[in-house]
Order: sequence, then structure tokens, then C-alpha cells
Amino acid sequence: MAEPSLQALTEALRRLPGVGQKSASRMAFHLLQHDREGARLLARALEQAATQVRHCSLCHTFTEDEVCATCRSPQRDRAKLCVVETPADQAAVERTQAFNGLYFVLMGKLSPLDGIGPKDIGLAKLFDRATAGELQEVILATNFTAEGEATAHVIGEALKQRGLKVSRLARGVPAGSELEYVDLGTIAHALVDRRMK
Amino acid sequence: MAEPSLQALTEALRRLPGVGQKSASRMAFHLLQHDREGARLLARALEQAATQVRHCSLCHTFTEDEVCATCRSPQRDRAKLCVVETPADQAAVERTQAFNGLYFVLMGKLSPLDGIGPKDIGLAKLFDRATAGELQEVILATNFTAEGEATAHVIGEALKQRGLKVSRLARGVPAGSELEYVDLGTIAHALVDRRMK
Ligand SMILES: [Zn+2]
Ligand SMILES: [Zn+2]
Repeated sequence: MAEPSLQALTEALRRLPGVGQKSASRMAFHLLQHDREGARLLARALEQAATQVRHCSLCHTFTEDEVCATCRSPQRDRAKLCVVETPADQAAVERTQAFNGLYFVLMGKLSPLDGIGPKDIGLAKLFDRATAGELQEVILATNFTAEGEATAHVIGEALKQRGLKVSRLARGVPAGSELEYVDLGTIAHALVDRRMK
Repeated sequence: MAEPSLQALTEALRRLPGVGQKSASRMAFHLLQHDREGARLLARALEQAATQVRHCSLCHTFTEDEVCATCRSPQRDRAKLCVVETPADQAAVERTQAFNGLYFVLMGKLSPLDGIGPKDIGLAKLFDRATAGELQEVILATNFTAEGEATAHVIGEALKQRGLKVSRLARGVPAGSELEYVDLGTIAHALVDRRMK
């Protein structure tokens, strides 16, 4: 693989997360041998997205406009704000059709070891927004990982100090699962967070 | 993720082998949030490679020229031809610095279930080339998978019928490994292919 354009392609593919030397080489082979149309399509999509996509000035999610469609929608309940880590998490919450409020997308999570602090996830903006306007409740929907929990804790404390109602997604047994196969920590959390019937 | 350019990017990334919906979405997020320069670099590399890279008219490997640098080199031994499946396999053999002949790159392997027959891996061209000129020995270096072995068998029989000397890479115990941890099939093959000292 000494051809310069092949080597450049393999190196560029390695900038994708989770792609090492072997995968990059396999991807380059596949595109050039079996799917040049896919290669050109991906090239155009990358260029287009890198140029068009920016952040919503209100909720920070990816959008092609100044303010995203969700933030603009007159149908959303402006009294509730759901805080998520990424647009993919936002999409997951949207798919449930169980939430009709607005979002704030951190575009990351607090991660001191990686040098990601409050500024990098736009917390000042979130706090400004939470205290202005008709907002009543903030639902923390960061992931249930160590970093996601720490991020929820920091945001939750700050918002409670500002007098806001703050909630967190319930931890518990996933729908459709059998207790026998659920890990202990999850069952313990489900006991703590149990609901009165 | 309802933004059209984001959706187009995620769909285009899914054309890469081994990339599903989740990985594509994670890749798009990473590029747009943390590495737009990488996105543009990958776009250019894809366009460039899709336009520049073609197949060597002699050995079928990827090249930007009519005939690749290896086939053109006056330093290579034209009496030996090594048959491999892909340019990555060719690169692996080259790295050993134990082979100084020429190559024929099948750009695939026989795979009747996937509809890949002798024509798709250029066997007519290989047979023409094997019987013209100074060639004395063909070394079959296809992979030691079921399909790679079958491909080696078909090519080997055809070349022997044409009066050529045909060899196959030795199967055996990998260098540096302890027998205790080597699988039975490999040890059995190493016994069959044992070398006299
Ligand atoms: Zn928005
Ligand atoms: Zn060549």
C-alpha cells in the first residue's frame, strides 16, 4: 500500500473513533474495490456536514439554523427542560414520545481527567437559561455512567441553589427483563427508587 | 438528529464495512464536535483516492499508474510469483523482506455463496501470465480460511496442469508461541508439514 492516495485515505479513516490500522485498511479496500460510489457519497456528506452543521444558540444541539426546530416549535412545553449529553441521547428521549418539553444538550460531560470542565459543556449558558423565563423543572438525563452521574450531580446542585425543581431519570430494571439476569446494582437501585402502587 | 446534512452523513458512514447505526452516529458526533478538520481531510482523501486509484494491469493491485512500482522494478525476481488475496496481504508479505519475486493480487477470493467466481478474481489473466515469460514457481499465499484454501486449491491444480511448479505457504506453529496454548489443528498441520533437520 505505498500509493500516496491510498495511504492518505487509510490515515484519514483512522481519525474516526474506534478505527485502527486494520479496520482503516479494510474500509479503504472495500470502498475502492466494491463501492466507489459510496466513497464519493461519503466525501460529499462529510464536506456538506462540516460546512452546514452548527450549534443551536439556545440548546447547543446540532442544527443548520441559528435556532433548532425543537427550540422554535410552539408545541413544546417551555416549563420543562431535559438535560442530555449528546444529540443521540436527545434522539433517544424523543423516540419515547414521553417528553414534550425543551432540551439542553451538553455536547459532552464533565470529565476532569480529559480536561473537560463546566465551560466546555456550556454550564453558564444552561444556568442563565434555567433562571430566565417560564422554566419550572429541569430533568437530568445524562448517562448512568460515573461521569454522567457526576455531571448530573454538579448541575443538579447548582440549579437547586437557584431555586429550581430538579429531577433525575429513574434507575431501575429495564422493561421486559427477567430479574434473574439483571445485575445486582440495577436491582439495588430499583429497590431504592421503588414506586408506591 | 433530524438535520438533513447530519442524517446524510450518518447514512454515508454506514456504507463503511463493520459500521452500524450506533457507530455511524458516534463517528458523526465526534467529527462534527471535535474534529471538523478530520472530516474535511477524510472528504478530500476519499475523493482523491476514488478518482486516482486503479488496478495494475499486470498484478491487479491498487496503483495510481498503468503498471505498479513492484511490477516495474528491475530488482524483482521474475521467476517467482506470489498469489495473495488483497493489497493488505501483499503488504504483509512485503514486510517480511523474505520474498523478492512478483505478485498477483486476486482482489478477493473464490466464494460461490457470494457469487464470486474465477472471473471476479482475474484467474484467466493469472493463468495467461503464469505461462508467458520467465516464470518458474507460483507461491500460493491466500489466507488459511476455508475460502482461501479452496481458492489456493483451484489455482494450484490449474497451474500444475500447465506444467508450473506450485507451492503453498507452510502451515504451522506461530513463531514465539508455546505448544500448550496452540490449537490442535495448528499442531496437527505442523506435524504434517514438518521439516527435516
Ligand atoms: Zn435548540
Ligand atoms: Zn503490479
